[in-house]
Amino acid sequence: MYNTKAYSAVSETSPLSSTTIERRDPTEHDVQIEILFCGICHSDLHSVRNEWSEFLPTTYPIVPGHEIVGRVTQVGSAVTKYKPGDLAAVGCLVDSDGTCPNCKAGLENFCPNQILTFNAPDKHLGGVTYGGYSDSVVVDERFVLRVPTNLALAGTAPLLCAGITTYSPMRHWGVTEGKKVGVVGLGGLGHMGVKFARAFGAHVVVFTTSPDKTEDALRLGADEVVVSRNTDEMQKHAGSFDFILDTVAAKHDINAYLNLLRLDGNLTLVGVSPNPLDVAAFSLIAARRNLSGSNIGGIPETQEMLDFCGEHNITADVEVIPIQKVNEAYERLVKSDVKYRFVIDMASLKSE
Amino acid sequence: MYNTKAYSAVSETSPLSSTTIERRDPTEHDVQIEILFCGICHSDLHSVRNEWSEFLPTTYPIVPGHEIVGRVTQVGSAVTKYKPGDLAAVGCLVDSDGTCPNCKAGLENFCPNQILTFNAPDKHLGGVTYGGYSDSVVVDERFVLRVPTNLALAGTAPLLCAGITTYSPMRHWGVTEGKKVGVVGLGGLGHMGVKFARAFGAHVVVFTTSPDKTEDALRLGADEVVVSRNTDEMQKHAGSFDFILDTVAAKHDINAYLNLLRLDGNLTLVGVSPNPLDVAAFSLIAARRNLSGSNIGGIPETQEMLDFCGEHNITADVEVIPIQKVNEAYERLVKSDVKYRFVIDMASLKSE
Repeated sequence: MYNTKAYSAVSETSPLSSTTIERRDPTEHDVQIEILFCGICHSDLHSVRNEWSEFLPTTYPIVPGHEIVGRVTQVGSAVTKYKPGDLAAVGCLVDSDGTCPNCKAGLENFCPNQILTFNAPDKHLGGVTYGGYSDSVVVDERFVLRVPTNLALAGTAPLLCAGITTYSPMRHWGVTEGKKVGVVGLGGLGHMGVKFARAFGAHVVVFTTSPDKTEDALRLGADEVVVSRNTDEMQKHAGSFDFILDTVAAKHDINAYLNLLRLDGNLTLVGVSPNPLDVAAFSLIAARRNLSGSNIGGIPETQEMLDFCGEHNITADVEVIPIQKVNEAYERLVKSDVKYRFVIDMASLKSE
Repeated sequence: MYNTKAYSAVSETSPLSSTTIERRDPTEHDVQIEILFCGICHSDLHSVRNEWSEFLPTTYPIVPGHEIVGRVTQVGSAVTKYKPGDLAAVGCLVDSDGTCPNCKAGLENFCPNQILTFNAPDKHLGGVTYGGYSDSVVVDERFVLRVPTNLALAGTAPLLCAGITTYSPMRHWGVTEGKKVGVVGLGGLGHMGVKFARAFGAHVVVFTTSPDKTEDALRLGADEVVVSRNTDEMQKHAGSFDFILDTVAAKHDINAYLNLLRLDGNLTLVGVSPNPLDVAAFSLIAARRNLSGSNIGGIPETQEMLDFCGEHNITADVEVIPIQKVNEAYERLVKSDVKYRFVIDMASLKSE
């Protein structure tokens, strides 16, 4: 074991503050990574504040962070894919059983024994796993990802969660050239959804409650922007969408969007509303529509997404902050006051 | 035009009673059918009582009925597929534009200009179309179906709505041998769902709130019966279903069933709850599940279903009644007191 600097919260009402945590010494299959940037995902905030206590209660202290990019500092003797000095990334998962049908299909994100990057049982050291708000992390090679060398590293970090969460459902439900695709909500997830849908060749329509996001949506790659409060504007698109990615993490009128889908169209939820959504059976039955959900992606697809981003020069739009401003960033995140993802420059942790 | 006997309701609070209606003389593309049996679908009752006024208001007088089997009495000069004396059937649709992409794909059930068998604009005579609670009907050849000669006619009538409504989604979402399939609710639709799922080779589990339906569910072809109020029994099936057909036409706990689906599993609604269903985003996201809806089927698939029923000797379980008992049957239908579909023997209308 060795000590490394980190930021942790000790209770659901505490701010994040500087601490020291223990990491395991790399085993033969492990990769040790010096963390350079770590994105701030809304899940970090939910977990720190124990807002998902019902299905994922938080164990304190918690070190959040699952949008990690860094540089390999050491590898175990059996590691073949990485060597010290390589760029590397870690997302939401650091382990899974490797033997279930989902793991065998490369869908570790649906493994019943998956280990999340933070706040999950740590089989090596006991206690819980600690995430990326830290100087260094040690992860099994199978859960380490290659980072294209042409991408800006700060903007790459959010790809590990916001990126794969939006990339995966669009691949799964067949977003390709010529398809009409909607993206509901233009935040951390939504802005990545727009970039990917555009890169896949789709006709991209952004739905937003804020008319002042129009210009930015077009800059990010949208072909059209619809202000969702405008019923007439919504009605013009009735029955026309192949796919809609819904990134809104609060209760909202889902039927208004289901009715925009064409025959056999699909609306996928990637935002988790804490309250159930009211779904009218008729919205689905009228055109054999589908309402579905998607949850990050498997490791092979996460690598595919990173490689795709390298080829298409796609990164997240980020606001880089020093870790000392993380609590302030959380307050702004609650107000959706970020374009479009906060990323912590971990160099700032060295001065703690 | 010619006159034919029928049963109609003149207002949403009136009972059905004997009347005479006009039918068009067959045009060159028309088939005239003497109606032998007509099933009683819950939609008949909804329409007679104007319970769907919001999206499908009723024009009075209404002659309901869209589960029609009979014998061809006359054909137009251009009709090639039928001749007098043939058995024939008509379902929920009597016309569509024939030119839209859905029609071209054989999905007339999703044509924006479809004409329903009753309570829809009648382009030939003006007013609205009149359904199968009648001695005779005249329908464009394209919407007339062949009836396998080996099937009991009374039990064949419900195939035209309850049959295709349950057959189509199971075909569309890939119910085949070895799949684990749930059927929620054991009524007119549910009992057909069980028969089809069994015939497709699936492992069939019936969910019911009534333990006293167990024996009948097994007789109909279920491999297992789960009493849905029993949480422990439900929990045993968590994450195990490939497909669930939900026939319940009232608000119910849909998450309890979504959570029974495996990765990429699909739950299809064919019952139309008048109140929206509460869907927890997490129920879908946790295993990339799908919630969908399905609405009868196209004409080619309806014929395929009838042919399949002929090959597998599948008919509905019915209670045959004279038309004079139709109002009484409606009262029993409201209480779900029917095993499993009322069918009117139209010979009874001749005595009116």
